[in-house]
Amino acid sequence: MTMNDKLWAGGFPSCPFEKGEKLESSQTNKEGLKIIPIGGLDRIGMNITAFEYGDSIVVVDCGLAFPEDDMLGIDFVIPDVSYLIENYSKVKGFIITHGHEDHIGAIPYVLQKLNVPIYATRLTMKLIEKKLEEHSLENSVKRKVISFGQSINLGEFRIEFIKTNHSIQDAAALALYSPAGIVVHTGDFKVDYTPVCGDMIDLQRFAEIGKKGVLALLCDSTNAERPGFTMSEKTVGAALERIFSDHENQRLIIATFASNVDRVQQILNTAAKHGRKVCLEGRSMVNVIGTAIELGYIDDSANSLVGLDELNNYPPENTVLITTGSQGESMAALSRMAANIHKKIKIIPGDVIVFSSHPIPGNEKAVSNVINELADIGAEVVFEDAHVSGHACQEDIKLMYALLHPKYAVPVHGERRHLLAQAKIAESLGIPKDHIWLLHTGDVLELSDERARIIGKVQTGGILVDGLGVGDVGNIVIRDRQRLAEDGIIIVVMTLESGSGSLLAGPDLVSRGFVYVRESEDLLEEARQVASEAVEACIEGKVRDWTAIKTAVKDTLSEFVWKRTQRRPMILPIIMDVNL
Amino acid sequence: MTMNDKLWAGGFPSCPFEKGEKLESSQTNKEGLKIIPIGGLDRIGMNITAFEYGDSIVVVDCGLAFPEDDMLGIDFVIPDVSYLIENYSKVKGFIITHGHEDHIGAIPYVLQKLNVPIYATRLTMKLIEKKLEEHSLENSVKRKVISFGQSINLGEFRIEFIKTNHSIQDAAALALYSPAGIVVHTGDFKVDYTPVCGDMIDLQRFAEIGKKGVLALLCDSTNAERPGFTMSEKTVGAALERIFSDHENQRLIIATFASNVDRVQQILNTAAKHGRKVCLEGRSMVNVIGTAIELGYIDDSANSLVGLDELNNYPPENTVLITTGSQGESMAALSRMAANIHKKIKIIPGDVIVFSSHPIPGNEKAVSNVINELADIGAEVVFEDAHVSGHACQEDIKLMYALLHPKYAVPVHGERRHLLAQAKIAESLGIPKDHIWLLHTGDVLELSDERARIIGKVQTGGILVDGLGVGDVGNIVIRDRQRLAEDGIIIVVMTLESGSGSLLAGPDLVSRGFVYVRESEDLLEEARQVASEAVEACIEGKVRDWTAIKTAVKDTLSEFVWKRTQRRPMILPIIMDVNL
Repeated sequence: MTMNDKLWAGGFPSCPFEKGEKLESSQTNKEGLKIIPIGGLDRIGMNITAFEYGDSIVVVDCGLAFPEDDMLGIDFVIPDVSYLIENYSKVKGFIITHGHEDHIGAIPYVLQKLNVPIYATRLTMKLIEKKLEEHSLENSVKRKVISFGQSINLGEFRIEFIKTNHSIQDAAALALYSPAGIVVHTGDFKVDYTPVCGDMIDLQRFAEIGKKGVLALLCDSTNAERPGFTMSEKTVGAALERIFSDHENQRLIIATFASNVDRVQQILNTAAKHGRKVCLEGRSMVNVIGTAIELGYIDDSANSLVGLDELNNYPPENTVLITTGSQGESMAALSRMAANIHKKIKIIPGDVIVFSSHPIPGNEKAVSNVINELADIGAEVVFEDAHVSGHACQEDIKLMYALLHPKYAVPVHGERRHLLAQAKIAESLGIPKDHIWLLHTGDVLELSDERARIIGKVQTGGILVDGLGVGDVGNIVIRDRQRLAEDGIIIVVMTLESGSGSLLAGPDLVSRGFVYVRESEDLLEEARQVASEAVEACIEGKVRDWTAIKTAVKDTLSEFVWKRTQRRPMILPIIMDVNL
Repeated sequence: MTMNDKLWAGGFPSCPFEKGEKLESSQTNKEGLKIIPIGGLDRIGMNITAFEYGDSIVVVDCGLAFPEDDMLGIDFVIPDVSYLIENYSKVKGFIITHGHEDHIGAIPYVLQKLNVPIYATRLTMKLIEKKLEEHSLENSVKRKVISFGQSINLGEFRIEFIKTNHSIQDAAALALYSPAGIVVHTGDFKVDYTPVCGDMIDLQRFAEIGKKGVLALLCDSTNAERPGFTMSEKTVGAALERIFSDHENQRLIIATFASNVDRVQQILNTAAKHGRKVCLEGRSMVNVIGTAIELGYIDDSANSLVGLDELNNYPPENTVLITTGSQGESMAALSRMAANIHKKIKIIPGDVIVFSSHPIPGNEKAVSNVINELADIGAEVVFEDAHVSGHACQEDIKLMYALLHPKYAVPVHGERRHLLAQAKIAESLGIPKDHIWLLHTGDVLELSDERARIIGKVQTGGILVDGLGVGDVGNIVIRDRQRLAEDGIIIVVMTLESGSGSLLAGPDLVSRGFVYVRESEDLLEEARQVASEAVEACIEGKVRDWTAIKTAVKDTLSEFVWKRTQRRPMILPIIMDVNL
């Protein structure tokens, strides 16, 4: 039994180290390739993985994560890249697989601390550039657009970009050639034999690399729980055709992901066929599709696209609106239309709203609320058939393993349950259990042809971004917000004479988010008296330590409030100090 | 065009009135039956419907609703029954269809204001009694247990209880015989030809009543969007048999709804067959199933049930734990086990956790978090096949319409989208569109053989329950909680001399939930200076109105904070007044 066998999860090897711990240097293998997931393994989003060999580090992706439900007031979360900053001189660059927020969203934040070149395909780079411009970084960051099939040399690594399919164009898998062997990172991918735009995934190249011998495969796990194959994006075209034909006399409003260029293309194609004009609505939709049009990734040779104001020149049944809000996001265009607060678009009975999307887990209720509002207006909602996933299902994942025949499997991209599902797929394909690594974020996996082992754990974590603040909201602030959200706050304020300790004013009570004050005057007056008695007891007892007085007020009042209401508002005593 | 045609939702008639409005009395039809949904139509839960004829009102169900995501800190919501209280003398009693929280949960609160008799079947009544005992109401409320087929006379109404199937035993549909005609209310129901316990739904009786002529059908809409038939509870037995057989050497932990007596019975049956002992865990599981055992609704002739402490006497592979927590509720037994904070049960690699349930919309992410924790421990999670719904799907709903042939359709139980789905089913069966009533909560629908129309709207709403407080948290308090949750609070406190208006102490700043104070000292000191300057400007300007000073501080500080952080914490200036 080796050290790595210490902890097991479902029979798979896992990390025996605490954060910051590592193997004694005498034990480490200097010739190994280190794979260090800095984010992205224990939750969806915030994908960023470091590959280290000798004095070279290359980093794949640099994404953000959307906040968990309990991260109140947080806009998004970016990865803690302390490990990369500590090893700044080794870091040769960021290699970005595709242009989704969970792969590029943290770039402007991380680049401010770690200015190294960025390598990405064309559309991906353009989307990154938009972000850099927003942070006035466009002139200070080196970047290079890479084509499929092209390789770049970064220190000890050579990195090849391989064409894949996904729900955004120009998605790439990466082959990382290192002295320790070849590692393939799929990025987010699906196998689409009939993509709407561009080429199918370059399965031949995966097979060629597989023939050379692959040390490890880091493969997308998002859909690893789903049996079968992922349908081609083109099947959505047939569904759209049906929807357009079934509703010839109604206005169509189609909600989808802003970044799904292929979906927008298919809607354009179908609209052109049915003689409808198309308008884009929603800030991110206009941004991303605008970028795609600029780069020639959208073909509108039928001139279907029109502006929102121009749309009114056409009869409703000759128009299609493509909008954001397919996830029920409260500020997105569709939600504003459904709530009848959109400035320019009013949904009327008979309109057909198509959800060309599936709710991301956690968004089901928000989506349902929008559907209820639409149903109440009398709009028709079409929810089925107009979407396919951008991620590989079980049989597609098997295909990737079959082409690459990796020695080690390192499932990536997904929650724990998804990684485990891929581990089981790998096992079913004959990869020995101890060659399948279910890593946690921060684990340092060292691979060589002879062996694989976890040799330590580096500092990682999520840095919360709230407005302009990056990292100034941490656990304490979030816990306070949770407490305030649950039961509100009672502030007890008083003025004491600093010399004598006598009470000059107060204690007064002010509450917010606790009870409706006008109807609870008696309760609050009683609470004030309880606080007052606690203060007076302190003064009579010659307590001159303000902290002790605060504690007395807090404890007495907490107990009173709990007994009377079974609530635990935050109780905040404030003493003002006057020197007469 | 009649008045009722004024507003339309998808072509169905709907209410033209505002709250409190009604038809002029000269226009009202004194012989009509009024149907008044007091809750339950615009959201899941809080089911309560009044039926009024002449001077008689009978009320069907009295449920609670679970809070929406934005109702911070709220435990649950009960209906505003002002209309019933205003008409207290008319109210003859509550008729309860079955023992789920969304049908009985508000009884102890409403009964305190409206003490009228309760009528229900045996298990339902026992569960109601448990609630009354918790509120010390068991001796003050009249109640009568009714058998299926039995009728009771209440004022102008005769009410017959008809056997149905649902995910709890003793569920009843109601036939309400009034001088205006017969109305059938299905309650929550499914059609189960092979129920695990008790009889199948009494379809013959529905047909007989249908032959007599039914004025209106109020039918369960929960699954009206789902095509096909709802599977029999017995099919879960086959799935359980497969799961038990596939995991003969592992401990089984099965999470399901506490109230699903039939499910527990099937697990007991399968366990007995496989020689496993069964233990119940979780407060509500022990409560409800305990009640069912007490009344003889559970058959444990194999003596499979054991206590938690006794369970340790058996090898894990010979045990089954039935637990609460199938919805990922953070305090439920399964969640505590998954988080490794359960006092008595520790999940280990190899344990098999079966979700005998589907996530209720909105709970998907919580359930997924529990699954991730279980996957991380190395437990095996079985999610498929071990559940069927307790609600009728489209074909079952059609059967109900086919047996009853109602003149009017009034879809109940569900969100707007579900009501609309049932309306479309009714329409497909030949019921004219203007005989299908998509009511909102509060609408007063008057029915007679000649016509149906909405004649007004009564006061309704949700009363928030937070701890011991019923209704003391309203919109203002909730909005404050939302604001506090989003960005926290900054309190600005100062002491002024009331005579001269001079500043004796402060302004001091205290913040909670805004920024991490230790790392933002500069920002907070600057903010203090901004507040201080605003106060001093007021004092110099001889402003002696405390409210004006507070407003100045609030405005200046809000602007400063927004510019620096893009956050909008609540800003709360407090002035203490000292008279020297």
